[in-house]
This record gives sequence, structure tokens and C-alpha cells, in this order.
Amino acid sequence: MKPRQKALLCTMLFLGILSAARLARAQAQQDDRVIRIAEIEIDPNQIVPYKAALREGIEAAIRLEPGVLTMYAVSVKDHPEQVRIFEVYANRAAYDAHLQTAHFKKYKATTQNMVRSLHLIDVDPILIRTR
Amino acid sequence: MKPRQKALLCTMLFLGILSAARLARAQAQQDDRVIRIAEIEIDPNQIVPYKAALREGIEAAIRLEPGVLTMYAVSVKDHPEQVRIFEVYANRAAYDAHLQTAHFKKYKATTQNMVRSLHLIDVDPILIRTR
Repeated sequence: MKPRQKALLCTMLFLGILSAARLARAQAQQDDRVIRIAEIEIDPNQIVPYKAALREGIEAAIRLEPGVLTMYAVSVKDHPEQVRIFEVYANRAAYDAHLQTAHFKKYKATTQNMVRSLHLIDVDPILIRTR
Repeated sequence: MKPRQKALLCTMLFLGILSAARLARAQAQQDDRVIRIAEIEIDPNQIVPYKAALREGIEAAIRLEPGVLTMYAVSVKDHPEQVRIFEVYANRAAYDAHLQTAHFKKYKATTQNMVRSLHLIDVDPILIRTR
């Protein structure tokens, strides 16, 4: 083998190893994600202030926490007191850190007398796609 | 007022109207969104083929349908037979069109004997944020 061919082969091998490592890391990051659905029932007389507090908390989390990837908050049609939040965190550390933030603590304190029940459902991803 | 000032003023006014119109359109598009949560119970003996069919359907929808904005499919931790899908469509027409696609019909046909129950929940957005 000529030295030039050898150099080319070595470069390709190096690039191959590099992309395999990147792929493995991306895979690991994907698998580290913490995904949760929160099912919350709100006092029907406090829906407006509850939604305001929730929006403020979500806006802050997305703005300030790189580990908070997704927060989809919705209410069941014709049942605005039934709230569901679909939450994706980069990993367990990002989730734990989120619980310690000032904005999350403020949300919890503000809404503690507005929330009638809270049901947290841990879930595993099957496929997560958005455009 | 000098002609140059007048021209500048006109340009700024035009740009102002343009961005207001864009904002209104973006707002209208946001409000048109159709958001749904599907709660599906699968035959525990057919979880693997069900997931494969679901993944294929979602990949095709996101690849081929610009009006399908989000498909988040998850299963409840330790209960892989309990599937939940969070779906966002650009508007009602995009949702109706989705139901008529070959990939959706294939998913429905493939999984009809795998699905034990299907509960569709229409929801209204409170705040939808992702990074």
C-alpha cells in the first residue's frame, strides 16, 4: 500500500470511529431523557390565575433551563379544569435541577391552593417527532 | 417634512403594517391548531409489532405531511401496553387529510387486532413550548 493510500485509509477509519462515537453519544442522550405526563385537576373557580402561573413557570423553564426540552400544557376540551402537561427533560439531573429552580418553587407556592389533584405518570418514549 | 424623511416614515409605516399582519397570521395559525391525546391499550402479546407499526406511521406522517406538526408517542413506565400519543396538527384540514393518507390507513389496518381500546381526547393549548 502506498503511503498516500495508507493516510487516506487511516483518515477514513478515524472519521468512522468518530461518527460511531457521536452516534453512541446521541443515542445515550436520547435514552437519558426523562418524560412525564402530569394530570392536574384545578379548582374551577381559579382556572384563570392557575393558567397564568403555569404559563409563567413554563416560559421561565424553557428560557432559563437548557435541560428542559419540552413543556406542552393543554386542557381537556370543555373541561378547562382538567390540565395535562407533557414534559421532556434531557436527563434525570436536568429534572432534579428543575425542581430546585426559583420559578418552579414560585409556581408550586402560587398554585398550591388552586390544584385539587395531581397525578404524575412516568413514561418511556416510543417515538418523539416534531417539525 | 423633507421628502427623504417622508419616504423613511412611509417605509417604516409599511414595515409596521407588514409585521402586524404577519403577527396576526401567526396568531391565527396557532389558534387553528388541532391537538389531541390518544390513550390506547394494546394486547400485551403484540406490543412489539404494534410499536413497529406505530413508529412507521409516525415517521411517514412527519416526513410526508407538512400539516402534522408533532407526534409524541410514549408508553406508561412498567405498562408497555398503555400507549399515549400527543398529536398536534396545523389545522382541521391537516387533521382530516391525515386520516385519508395511505400510511395512516396502513397503520389502522395493521393494528386493528392489536388495539384493545382507543380513547381520543380533544384538548386546547394552554402553552406549547419546545426547544
